[in-house]
Amino acid sequence: MQIIGEKINGTRKQVNEAVVDRDGDFIRRLAREQAAAGADLLDVNAGTTPDREPDDLVWLVKCVQEEVQVPLCLDSANPVALADALKHVVGEPMINSINGDRDRLETILPLVVNHKCMVIALAMDESGIPKSVDDRMNVMRRVFRATREAGVPDEKVYVDPLIMTVATDTSAGLTALESIRAVRREYPEAHITSGLSNISFGLPGRSLINRTFLTLAMEAGLDSAIVDLTSRELFESLLITEMLLGRDPFCRRYTKTFKAGRIGTR
Amino acid sequence: MQIIGEKINGTRKQVNEAVVDRDGDFIRRLAREQAAAGADLLDVNAGTTPDREPDDLVWLVKCVQEEVQVPLCLDSANPVALADALKHVVGEPMINSINGDRDRLETILPLVVNHKCMVIALAMDESGIPKSVDDRMNVMRRVFRATREAGVPDEKVYVDPLIMTVATDTSAGLTALESIRAVRREYPEAHITSGLSNISFGLPGRSLINRTFLTLAMEAGLDSAIVDLTSRELFESLLITEMLLGRDPFCRRYTKTFKAGRIGTR
Repeated sequence: MQIIGEKINGTRKQVNEAVVDRDGDFIRRLAREQAAAGADLLDVNAGTTPDREPDDLVWLVKCVQEEVQVPLCLDSANPVALADALKHVVGEPMINSINGDRDRLETILPLVVNHKCMVIALAMDESGIPKSVDDRMNVMRRVFRATREAGVPDEKVYVDPLIMTVATDTSAGLTALESIRAVRREYPEAHITSGLSNISFGLPGRSLINRTFLTLAMEAGLDSAIVDLTSRELFESLLITEMLLGRDPFCRRYTKTFKAGRIGTR
Repeated sequence: MQIIGEKINGTRKQVNEAVVDRDGDFIRRLAREQAAAGADLLDVNAGTTPDREPDDLVWLVKCVQEEVQVPLCLDSANPVALADALKHVVGEPMINSINGDRDRLETILPLVVNHKCMVIALAMDESGIPKSVDDRMNVMRRVFRATREAGVPDEKVYVDPLIMTVATDTSAGLTALESIRAVRREYPEAHITSGLSNISFGLPGRSLINRTFLTLAMEAGLDSAIVDLTSRELFESLLITEMLLGRDPFCRRYTKTFKAGRIGTR
């Protein structure tokens, strides 16, 4: 599992304030904690208005890179902010995100190609998130036609099937799981990633729901996730699921992490 | 999910002592607690030596039936004990268990037929538990030939795929999940049940592993389990998994149970 740390996200109030106030200590702490927890990439999202987003994203990139050496996932819909940030990025970044929207493909795909980025591709387009698995797959086929034509290899593409809450749609979990299986079948070289917390939106006991859904999604083929790895519960579920799916030889990683006190009852 | 309460099992020291001492209060408490937690059936296993097992099992059956109206799962390999106990059972019982062993089929299957019982069928025979999914399925095919010939409808058969620990076999989880899928595919009318706790034998943090495996097994097709429903953690996983698999319309059962304080952080 390739874990993208979700915490440096300007849509969260505290992070937004830190960005606006240039509170580097706060951002560096989030970067440090997530890297220490084992995140493979760190999402950076300025979450500010378009006029100031390019400067803010560049500041975020520099700030995080001062602290940790983990690759970044540049999270913005703004091609100007992405292009500016890419000038300062060290190593192989990820861009979050493209989708079936032609404008977005035309403006962002060249950046992906020129900087040899990984890229998250959302299963939606300008008309929104399709309800059915088939319609989502139709959008994804359009996206993969575009990425392939542009010369982006499938293994650089991280499909986000877009998980919705079961609170308003009883079949939302099944739709997400079936979408994951369909992408895995049709694009075996591509990766599949997603934030998980939407699944439990509006329900009590959210972290329990999220961790259970992580287990189901991993079995279906999710091989990356945009999550908070500093959450003990989520990290537990991740390691246990890997073990139960035969991906932890001799249960070594699980037992080691357990003995180190990083998972299990405190 | 059809839940078989596992706690009245004479292989557990406390229960064995209660059986030998005829401590009805202790047994009735276990029966009451499991019934209150929502168990659909209660396993009763005397766990004593063959000479006294018939008397002990009859005592257990009477004792539990004095307290609760939940159907019983008579857990014994001893045809005499089973036959004696069946004389005292109220309602439609389950027998735990038959397997591919011809002797066992010949002695126990007539009891299943005569008393119109449900029956648990283990994926093993006199030579032990086969390692591969294919070999387990070969055993199950032999069992189903026998149950069908005897006139037992598939929907009365509860296949136990026999879950082994991942501590000594990294692929044990996958083998169990694949066995469940294979039975579901080949015998769609049959039920699939199992104890879960073997999966974590020899590892720390067992309840976390068991609850995670329950989620995976339910997705694969497990529709019954022999578990301790009074365990808050397991009950949580059960309800959340049902919800995520689209089996809890409008999340009603989950939210109701959560609000009643029976699941979630205390």
